[in-house]
Amino acid sequence: MKAISVLGSTGSIGTQTLEIVEDFPEKFKVVALTAGRNLKLLAQQIQRHNPEVVALADESLLSDLEDILNAIPKNERPANLPKLIGGASGLNVAAAWDSADLVVTGIVGCAGLLPTLSAIRAGKDLALANKETLIAAGPVVLPELQKSGSRLLPADSEHSAIFQCLQGTPLANNAHLSTGVPTPGLRRIQLTASGGAFRDWSAEELKKATVKDAISHPNWSMGQKITVDSATLMNKGLEVIEAHYLFGLDYDHIEIVIHPQSIIHSMIELKDSSVLAQLGWPDMRLPILYCMSWPHRLDTPWRRLNLTEVGQLSFLAPDTHKYPCMELAYAAGQKGGTMPAVLNAANEEAVSQFLQEKIHFLDIPKIIESTCEKHKSDFQADPRLDDILFVDQWAREIVREKI
Amino acid sequence: MKAISVLGSTGSIGTQTLEIVEDFPEKFKVVALTAGRNLKLLAQQIQRHNPEVVALADESLLSDLEDILNAIPKNERPANLPKLIGGASGLNVAAAWDSADLVVTGIVGCAGLLPTLSAIRAGKDLALANKETLIAAGPVVLPELQKSGSRLLPADSEHSAIFQCLQGTPLANNAHLSTGVPTPGLRRIQLTASGGAFRDWSAEELKKATVKDAISHPNWSMGQKITVDSATLMNKGLEVIEAHYLFGLDYDHIEIVIHPQSIIHSMIELKDSSVLAQLGWPDMRLPILYCMSWPHRLDTPWRRLNLTEVGQLSFLAPDTHKYPCMELAYAAGQKGGTMPAVLNAANEEAVSQFLQEKIHFLDIPKIIESTCEKHKSDFQADPRLDDILFVDQWAREIVREKI
Repeated sequence: MKAISVLGSTGSIGTQTLEIVEDFPEKFKVVALTAGRNLKLLAQQIQRHNPEVVALADESLLSDLEDILNAIPKNERPANLPKLIGGASGLNVAAAWDSADLVVTGIVGCAGLLPTLSAIRAGKDLALANKETLIAAGPVVLPELQKSGSRLLPADSEHSAIFQCLQGTPLANNAHLSTGVPTPGLRRIQLTASGGAFRDWSAEELKKATVKDAISHPNWSMGQKITVDSATLMNKGLEVIEAHYLFGLDYDHIEIVIHPQSIIHSMIELKDSSVLAQLGWPDMRLPILYCMSWPHRLDTPWRRLNLTEVGQLSFLAPDTHKYPCMELAYAAGQKGGTMPAVLNAANEEAVSQFLQEKIHFLDIPKIIESTCEKHKSDFQADPRLDDILFVDQWAREIVREKI
Repeated sequence: MKAISVLGSTGSIGTQTLEIVEDFPEKFKVVALTAGRNLKLLAQQIQRHNPEVVALADESLLSDLEDILNAIPKNERPANLPKLIGGASGLNVAAAWDSADLVVTGIVGCAGLLPTLSAIRAGKDLALANKETLIAAGPVVLPELQKSGSRLLPADSEHSAIFQCLQGTPLANNAHLSTGVPTPGLRRIQLTASGGAFRDWSAEELKKATVKDAISHPNWSMGQKITVDSATLMNKGLEVIEAHYLFGLDYDHIEIVIHPQSIIHSMIELKDSSVLAQLGWPDMRLPILYCMSWPHRLDTPWRRLNLTEVGQLSFLAPDTHKYPCMELAYAAGQKGGTMPAVLNAANEEAVSQFLQEKIHFLDIPKIIESTCEKHKSDFQADPRLDDILFVDQWAREIVREKI
């Protein structure tokens, strides 16, 4: 029985994680949940999973949650209600909760950084869906991982594909989990990208892209922010940086290939030129489950991949002119230090402004580029956590000021 | 430095193995060679690789080989010429040669069975390209492997793909090498098939198929016999039986999918519905090298797979009506015992007759089917080696008598 904590339990990753727990009641139990504002769903999750602790990001909502829980008839709720805690420190406490074996980090964006670090410092294994932790704070997170022995299991579908393919490489069980260390035998990574909502749109058509257009992903069911990131291909750019920290390859050996069907989730090329790929229907439950069951495989009744039904898999080189975010991410990754944190913060804020219809879709890369440009005078090559948190706030303010 | 024996050194697998040895002189050396009739090429190989022993299947050719070697100027040949031996017993001695670490079995057809068994009994690790060893004699070979601790590394590209994908499964290092034991976590195997020379031919056109048509393989450069087997899809049927013995799955969980580009070399489906695939250009050197370097990967300068260059990978269900050999192989595999040996011998003899233009392409499955049918009265469920050798000869005679 593995004890699971779910950070961001009411989000897309969180709800799917809890579905898996329900599918395998003899394998997993929930000990901690954290959430933002969806108190109704959170109360249902508490009722069903009976965790030991629940943390709310916004401390002022704690009494509302208590009211909802107390309104549940006694015979329908767990005998012992969980300990309820709140605020940033509450999230950190829940993330480091003692009885947890694995922490699933489903919080979107840089907000997930501190709780994730808290889990790492407590030596917990992580199912990492919060890629911003590595992207913004790679230089800080890597030494913490080495110190605590915490292991990063990637829940991002692309990185899970790579992780699954890497299982067979010598020493992989050590190398690919300690992060930042090149994996023996690994030569190159190819991240596949669906191409997002605007794959088949011309540059001219993109000028008229609306929020509604951008949040309609062709293949994956995900949150709004990441769906916009798919449309700009920034998501893939961020994944390149994530892969750099997870698998220890330099940026020249991490490539992006457009694969509209989203069946091959990513590929690795080994030193002898052999390529291994992981395939499946686009379904986030599989990479989440693999984090939870690793190194074993659990029997699922999920729809089996039938390639004769798919018929064709196609592959295209990405159009860097149409998707400038991709190049911005490579440049920030190669620069390293505080630059990926600035890129990520500027992107989060720009996407937020786009979702509020305050800026246009094509403004997103322009805003990110000028923010990264502006940061060059204050760039730090070897940042501490404080530096990363500072530039994160600074970049958000710069973006807001511009609009 | 790994010491390699090459059985069938002048054939397609053998020559590619020796190319690899030349590419990695610090990793591999040759200690034993066996060959059939191509004495000129064999003499060149002796000159270049300086093996300790050389065996000829036909003992009467030994003196010719000696003459060729003696005609080489002294300064161009190794100081010590190899020990030369001949006949069936000579092949067995070379196959079990004491200083060898790995025996590459590149002999085509059932002729490879006894030398391969000799290597297994000597406890040698095998790079198995001679699939007939398992197909005809699986029930005899499996216990011998368990007794001697000899490990089977598949050199067939499809089985190598599966083997590579399986590296990451728990306990795979034991399970997939001991053969016949189901691999934990493995649910299903999908063997890919190019569809062979007649993939795009109609049933009507097939009636006019010539030898020249049948030996023009669209993707792979291989020997004649196996190229005809690709055209009938018997090759894939034989590979299904081979996979059954290698990976311990029942026949309902080994499937064939037509994949005209031959880029995905095969796939495994794990219990959680995740699919792993191995990809590469069609090049037999890669699976051979992986047998030689396993569990490590050696750096090669070979052409790197570029999927954007390939553009599309397509997949089709095989047409069982057009390719009856496939179904015949499944039926023989499911029957087990002596039946796969009969299927294989009837196929070898029928293909030989076809290559001599004595029968028509469409006669091949008919002859195999009637031979298997005829064997039902003498079928043995639990054969000894003698039984297998007997039915092998019997089936060949039946085929020859019919023509």
